[in-house]
Amino acid sequence: MFQLLRTHIEKRVNLTDEEFVTIFKFFVSKKLRKKQFLLNEGEVCKHISFVNSGCLRQYTIDNKGVEHIIQFAIEDWWVSDLHSFLSGKPATDNIDALLDSEVLLLEKSARDELLNSCPKMEKFFRILIEANHVATNQRISDSLSTTAEERYLNFIKTYPKIFEQVPQNQIASYLGITPQSLSRIRKELSQK
Amino acid sequence: MFQLLRTHIEKRVNLTDEEFVTIFKFFVSKKLRKKQFLLNEGEVCKHISFVNSGCLRQYTIDNKGVEHIIQFAIEDWWVSDLHSFLSGKPATDNIDALLDSEVLLLEKSARDELLNSCPKMEKFFRILIEANHVATNQRISDSLSTTAEERYLNFIKTYPKIFEQVPQNQIASYLGITPQSLSRIRKELSQK
Repeated sequence: MFQLLRTHIEKRVNLTDEEFVTIFKFFVSKKLRKKQFLLNEGEVCKHISFVNSGCLRQYTIDNKGVEHIIQFAIEDWWVSDLHSFLSGKPATDNIDALLDSEVLLLEKSARDELLNSCPKMEKFFRILIEANHVATNQRISDSLSTTAEERYLNFIKTYPKIFEQVPQNQIASYLGITPQSLSRIRKELSQK
Repeated sequence: MFQLLRTHIEKRVNLTDEEFVTIFKFFVSKKLRKKQFLLNEGEVCKHISFVNSGCLRQYTIDNKGVEHIIQFAIEDWWVSDLHSFLSGKPATDNIDALLDSEVLLLEKSARDELLNSCPKMEKFFRILIEANHVATNQRISDSLSTTAEERYLNFIKTYPKIFEQVPQNQIASYLGITPQSLSRIRKELSQK
């Protein structure tokens, strides 16, 4: 159950078998069926979740009822409403499963205890969040300076696995364009 | 010279006087005159920089030569092209001073040594980057789901100090709208 998480952590920090045994005790497995929610807007986000299998999406709903996708999370990714997790305030995001999925939940108090009992995990989370932050900055930069077509091509290149698994209308939402615009872009690209 | 940085770090982790003496040795002060560059696109970003005074901006230039502002950094903030800093690859961003400024530079190798010699700083950077990541996610969410007027009002509320110090055309660029659109929004708001 923890093999993927172990490999994921080992890419970033060196830990002993004993340390891994300690670490895994802080995680709880949860299975989600397609369309099942991991987090609803208004609840406090009590966990950060490592995706062991499947695919989840994180999204907000604006005042007009339109969904806006913040991110997709496939296996080997983390997903949470980090603001809510850190502050204890109600979440503004929803997280649900696009496919049947399994996540490994790490509760706030469990993470605090984990960080205290295994300081190498401070390093792990620092490295993890720095990489996430770089990807997020890239997305902002792209949203300001690239066309929808360029963003679509970047998406396919950067996240080929997500592209295979996620419906086109969800990808349109992630890119901040309508499904109609995405269809037009795909048609134009196929004619090039 | 290090009082602001000390207060900034103390808000996040507890350190002794001796630890602070050690930490400050890793930083180098640099003064920038208005319009002077801290980083040019294509160079490797060798430092992360703590802003001791003044105001900097970080921006990209797109294929059409248009500037897009990624972030402003006033005193008590950090600024870097994190992707370049972490990977050693050429920077895609430019960083220059909007006002006469002083920054405290922390080189990549110095940060690695600092993290090794003072593990509490792993915790500090983990907490710092988590908070930055939350703010960046909020900006993505806003860019997808709010109007330009809402983004402008959010900006004033969230970054009142930056609003006071930065020219309006720079704020328009940050919000992803033209200076003309921003003028229209300001006019409409003043009539409400």
